[in-house]
Amino acid sequence: MKIVIIGGVAGGASAAARARRLDENAEIVVLERGEHPSFANCGLPYYVGGKIQSRDKLLVAPVKMLRDRLRLDVRTRSEAIQIDREAHQVWVRNLDTGQETSESYDKLIIATGASPFRPPIPGVDGSRVLELRDLKDADRMHALATSGSKRAVILGAGFIGIEIAENLVRRGIAVTILELADQILPPWDREMIGPIDAHMRQQGVDIRLGLSVESFEETPTGLRVQLTSGETLDADFAAVCIGVRPESKLAAEAGIVCGARGGIQTTANMQTNDPDIYAVGDVVEVECFVSKTPVQIPLAGPANRQGRIAADHIFGRDSKYRGTQGTAIVGVFEKTAAMTGLSEKVLQRIGTPYEKVYIHPADHAGYYPGAEGMTLKLIFDPSTGKVLGAQAVGSSGVDKRIDIVAMAIQAGMTVDDLEEVELCYAPQYGHAKDPINMAGFVAAGVVRGDQPIVHADASLAESQANHFLLDVRSEAEFASGHIPAATNVPLESLRERIAELPRDRRIIAYCKVGQRGYLATRILMQHGFDVANLSGGYTSWLAANPSPTT
Amino acid sequence: MKIVIIGGVAGGASAAARARRLDENAEIVVLERGEHPSFANCGLPYYVGGKIQSRDKLLVAPVKMLRDRLRLDVRTRSEAIQIDREAHQVWVRNLDTGQETSESYDKLIIATGASPFRPPIPGVDGSRVLELRDLKDADRMHALATSGSKRAVILGAGFIGIEIAENLVRRGIAVTILELADQILPPWDREMIGPIDAHMRQQGVDIRLGLSVESFEETPTGLRVQLTSGETLDADFAAVCIGVRPESKLAAEAGIVCGARGGIQTTANMQTNDPDIYAVGDVVEVECFVSKTPVQIPLAGPANRQGRIAADHIFGRDSKYRGTQGTAIVGVFEKTAAMTGLSEKVLQRIGTPYEKVYIHPADHAGYYPGAEGMTLKLIFDPSTGKVLGAQAVGSSGVDKRIDIVAMAIQAGMTVDDLEEVELCYAPQYGHAKDPINMAGFVAAGVVRGDQPIVHADASLAESQANHFLLDVRSEAEFASGHIPAATNVPLESLRERIAELPRDRRIIAYCKVGQRGYLATRILMQHGFDVANLSGGYTSWLAANPSPTT
Repeated sequence: MKIVIIGGVAGGASAAARARRLDENAEIVVLERGEHPSFANCGLPYYVGGKIQSRDKLLVAPVKMLRDRLRLDVRTRSEAIQIDREAHQVWVRNLDTGQETSESYDKLIIATGASPFRPPIPGVDGSRVLELRDLKDADRMHALATSGSKRAVILGAGFIGIEIAENLVRRGIAVTILELADQILPPWDREMIGPIDAHMRQQGVDIRLGLSVESFEETPTGLRVQLTSGETLDADFAAVCIGVRPESKLAAEAGIVCGARGGIQTTANMQTNDPDIYAVGDVVEVECFVSKTPVQIPLAGPANRQGRIAADHIFGRDSKYRGTQGTAIVGVFEKTAAMTGLSEKVLQRIGTPYEKVYIHPADHAGYYPGAEGMTLKLIFDPSTGKVLGAQAVGSSGVDKRIDIVAMAIQAGMTVDDLEEVELCYAPQYGHAKDPINMAGFVAAGVVRGDQPIVHADASLAESQANHFLLDVRSEAEFASGHIPAATNVPLESLRERIAELPRDRRIIAYCKVGQRGYLATRILMQHGFDVANLSGGYTSWLAANPSPTT
Repeated sequence: MKIVIIGGVAGGASAAARARRLDENAEIVVLERGEHPSFANCGLPYYVGGKIQSRDKLLVAPVKMLRDRLRLDVRTRSEAIQIDREAHQVWVRNLDTGQETSESYDKLIIATGASPFRPPIPGVDGSRVLELRDLKDADRMHALATSGSKRAVILGAGFIGIEIAENLVRRGIAVTILELADQILPPWDREMIGPIDAHMRQQGVDIRLGLSVESFEETPTGLRVQLTSGETLDADFAAVCIGVRPESKLAAEAGIVCGARGGIQTTANMQTNDPDIYAVGDVVEVECFVSKTPVQIPLAGPANRQGRIAADHIFGRDSKYRGTQGTAIVGVFEKTAAMTGLSEKVLQRIGTPYEKVYIHPADHAGYYPGAEGMTLKLIFDPSTGKVLGAQAVGSSGVDKRIDIVAMAIQAGMTVDDLEEVELCYAPQYGHAKDPINMAGFVAAGVVRGDQPIVHADASLAESQANHFLLDVRSEAEFASGHIPAATNVPLESLRERIAELPRDRRIIAYCKVGQRGYLATRILMQHGFDVANLSGGYTSWLAANPSPTT
């Protein structure tokens, strides 16, 4: 058995290692275009910023180790340029000598990844317009970041753009981020990401939303960036991070079937339309685990698992990829945003009914020092309660809560299950009722009809004339800020003052985070009022209605 | 509807709040023996140690709030002394006046909790022998800890004993812990808890295992503690923390059925044998979620959920308690131990077949600064791969991994599922192959027969004559310490030197943590050798065979 693997990073390296463990006698050739296979691509921004000081740390599996331990025939600086399916051959160009040779295969694994999309903007190919995909890119950006650069422009506020911004700030560089969407970190829902946006601005990052670049122009001293808004920015360099495209050209040219977004289509065994050719990692189109629709989600974890699965299948094992659920996390200046499953915007796009709840818990018991707040949004099927997705933003404990919901989604759990799950509790780690239990309580109450809720979105503002907005916080809280047109009746006196409330309109109750509003809703429902609780309370309202200055 | 609740902490308070939300008109009486209902009992050790500075922080739901918001009739310093089931009455003693009155009920909820067990040792009732259950106890210990005490003896190395030890050390007090078992933190398996034991000793805690107290004797200046070993310790005070007993006497006297361990038996709706009487929290016997056997596990999370369930059932809802899975966590001097599901020792006791694997990952990618090691033990059914339990010891990220396995157990997942789950990954939070995935890979490989394993326990030592111990680490690693009688053949030269290995005996391969040992096992299996990998490698061997000095 001779296996040729094109691409030696996450998916390709995993496939190679797994294949060797399954067969000592297989001939395994890894073709890697760059100088190093299996480098830590997720660490590149942190090398640029100096958080990771030694470049060697990024070389997680040096060629020598792969050769000595796994007996892989690793060929760096070797680019696959053509697949001859008929002849079962790959044509390979040696990037040092230019020589082209053919390599035969019994099974071929395509792990070519995805490449940064470079928009057709004048000047985008200039030497001061960078991307950050591999070590070579990182070396260039590192050199610019450590040689007196004062200003940088980042095009795109996705994961990589945000991570580069943090790391350039760490180098003392003034950063402007340009994002065409109306929010940073587009995979998250907009109202969730406000705290990250605000926090980055506090750290001095200049974030410009809803615009892009008209042109890049090199000047004697740097780069002039012309924005679509008409404004001009001067910078020492720019980074383009507006997403990636699967590098499927080689496959497509050989007649391998690709999907609408350009990703190679495979079976659950990672097999393409040619049974002797597999594809894994960012180059493939995957099925969303939750929606069962085809998606293009470039993530390291799925790439690694796909690599294993392809090798398994080559050696007769029926391992199957279950689909990608989009679990993702990004850290920036000690803040964390994480998500799993479907976002509200994706659910709207695909037309799936959903409901959502917001809670604002602390990461651990409030009476133990150091508790930090987070916002957790849980998205679920309004009739069955099945968990569809979750997003969380905060500091400590955010990754844990999203991992827990990721497990719930894997297991097909409902919000009732989240009420009951038993998680670690000591006051420095969580709560006797963990935020996950709390989100389950609230959501299950909504599904069961115990607690009608509304949300702090456009529909609330539109329906304002038809409802009575009831603030059940204390008088002091109310005085320090409230939703316009709200009436304050503190929860503690609600029962006595119930005659003051209207019976001809719906009452929208709210408090700071939703808990007193829930109790008020329960009280008023039992007294025959038409009432709903504002999910997440005033805190969620503020997130959805930021003051114009931010 | 009139509901009387005996006990106002976790389970009782949750039941009261839930009952009010379900029925505005119910009369809800909470009888609390102490001065405060709903105090933060898990915070008591940290108040003693000064980590929580203000005593007021422990009063999480003051009486006034419960009255004003929930209209609960909270009666503190009121002890239930008799239940008259026939008359549907509880007799209550006012602890201030001594007056006894009766309180009628339609439904009664018993949430009397569990009280520290005080062994029948001479002097155990002296004024310098403390326990730590309620605020009154905390006040006493706080006073002694902050008024010049120099030495303390703690009897029992369970959760509370360990937490008190940490907090007294924080006050500059020299602490000796006495534990009858041969390990601290008996719920964990012994080989897992070594790092916590060693770390506490490094912090100056004097830990004595396998002994107990013969007598306590008050002296003019303090306390003399006579040990079963014959030794005598002088101390300013002692704390007795050798477990708790359900406070079910009141219930039992009224004919409520209790189990063998003294806990009240209930249905899944938390109903006792008297349909008008419910019981929740530490006073009840619960079913283990995993083994389906009756257990007595005092935990705050389950108590809270049981309270909700009892209130639900009173108001006609069929909420059911699913059983307790024993998810637990303890922190001590920046180290963390957590567990969920069944331990190996429980599985041995109940005679359930199991297999286990050990891994020693870092909490996040090693190339990102600050990675901290942990040990994770995963226990599973050897034929089906169903997850039965997990234990982890380390620092950062331990709580997260155990919560993830807790979800897997709730969902009835197998180790194959753990291979596939998709968790948050960025280098500062985890790994592209999270420790949970890794544990799944290893365990699933064992279930599938890809990787025979052995463990660093007594059986390994016993069978030593019958096997060949192969250390596949580097020569330098081998030279710095190895298992006695091992032969070193580094993985990198294993294939060349394969003729040196015996075919008449089983080969036990090992490396530092198990990964190279796994590859060596795969290589040798394919060459026809009888071989097994030592799970967790030399690291696990060291944990199971600590040097005599520690």
